[in-house]
Amino acid sequence: MTIQAVVFDAYGTLYDIQSVAAITERAYPGYGELITQIWRIKQLEYTWLRSLMRRYEDFSVITRESLDYTLDCLGLKQDAEIFDSIMDKYLHLDLYPDALQALSELKDRKLAILSNGSTGMLNALVRNSGLDRLLDATISIDSKSIFKPSPDAYALIEETLRIAPTDVLFVSSNPWDACGAKAFGLKVAWIERVTPDAMVRAFERRDLVTPLAMFKAIRTQMDQLGLKPDHQISGLSDLPGLVAGIRP
Amino acid sequence: MTIQAVVFDAYGTLYDIQSVAAITERAYPGYGELITQIWRIKQLEYTWLRSLMRRYEDFSVITRESLDYTLDCLGLKQDAEIFDSIMDKYLHLDLYPDALQALSELKDRKLAILSNGSTGMLNALVRNSGLDRLLDATISIDSKSIFKPSPDAYALIEETLRIAPTDVLFVSSNPWDACGAKAFGLKVAWIERVTPDAMVRAFERRDLVTPLAMFKAIRTQMDQLGLKPDHQISGLSDLPGLVAGIRP
Repeated sequence: MTIQAVVFDAYGTLYDIQSVAAITERAYPGYGELITQIWRIKQLEYTWLRSLMRRYEDFSVITRESLDYTLDCLGLKQDAEIFDSIMDKYLHLDLYPDALQALSELKDRKLAILSNGSTGMLNALVRNSGLDRLLDATISIDSKSIFKPSPDAYALIEETLRIAPTDVLFVSSNPWDACGAKAFGLKVAWIERVTPDAMVRAFERRDLVTPLAMFKAIRTQMDQLGLKPDHQISGLSDLPGLVAGIRP
Repeated sequence: MTIQAVVFDAYGTLYDIQSVAAITERAYPGYGELITQIWRIKQLEYTWLRSLMRRYEDFSVITRESLDYTLDCLGLKQDAEIFDSIMDKYLHLDLYPDALQALSELKDRKLAILSNGSTGMLNALVRNSGLDRLLDATISIDSKSIFKPSPDAYALIEETLRIAPTDVLFVSSNPWDACGAKAFGLKVAWIERVTPDAMVRAFERRDLVTPLAMFKAIRTQMDQLGLKPDHQISGLSDLPGLVAGIRP
């Protein structure tokens, strides 16, 4: 069989990063969606900027700094207890509803996560969601001190699992991550969670838009980076069938 | 005198990137602001992603690909002539109104641009705006095949002008660029074009927001990257006074 391991991105792929919306809304009524979207957009920007500046800090620091930025930017008063309660959700993010079932059906392959998350954050998240019983490895890019989509980050899959990139299916819903993995030489399945039709419908009005629509426009459509994932699926539940069908 | 050269970022600092809004609106009535903001956000994302992926393409390619992405994302029909007319504006961006006067008053120092733009784009832009008469050098990061905020990009200032980083004042309105220059060791003046008060006022409503407000929230407030520019000014017109006042 050609696919010996299936390796997943964590944030946005197995775990729903939008599941912080309830806690941000409770903390700052009326601002939940704005905080959720600006925070996530800045969090990833900071991983890229710190990587390029060669000023690596781990993802827990970046997640705090991007939340801090977001609250300042919106003029919201900060409170240490509220801040920590929002941050804590990152250790208890919701799994996508089809995640557990899909992983269970893939148990004849090596299963792993490769994530920007710090080792501490990832281990807590995986344990809290029960994925520790299904995964063979949870790989943090932390040991490389550079974030995805640097090739150094994707190299950790072979270094950890001892499986060649061409025998690995990397799964991500993040377009830039799918492109980075493809550039590195992994086989890639991209999860298109927002179809082009749904994207267009998200902009019912053009002058006033929802923060979520802006997030979707920036971070859910396939990027134009000169690369194309090998496979496109619409959810994790498509994965067992896809993997079974991939022949050498 | 301690400041021997004043080096400017181009896009967003000397040149108003929002000045593409008229042509995008004319091309796609009702969509001008959305196109303008998504395009600029993706354009910079692509510089960072391609740099990290080690898949450099010059800024003219990235500017085309990010515009292409933006139109696709909004479900807008493409037309080669319209596309080229929008792209052409990048060679004719408006100078900020105080740019020419500020540069004229700084003529006792070396004056240069260090920009992500490709050599061809920058030379055309500088000539079309008349800045070629005031600048000693227009430096593109193109020869390094990596974009700002990589230290390799900022190293071009000393390599070109033969002036040490500590004797250079780098001027940018882009927070990530100001941080990148500071991390490299340049003296930095950051132009705060959107005050915190104006930022808060931009979000009059929280459920439905303008695309411009989202852009401002993401790209105009000082980033939290563990770095602080040496100086903060509110416009280019503050610069001659600032430079005159900087003592060893």
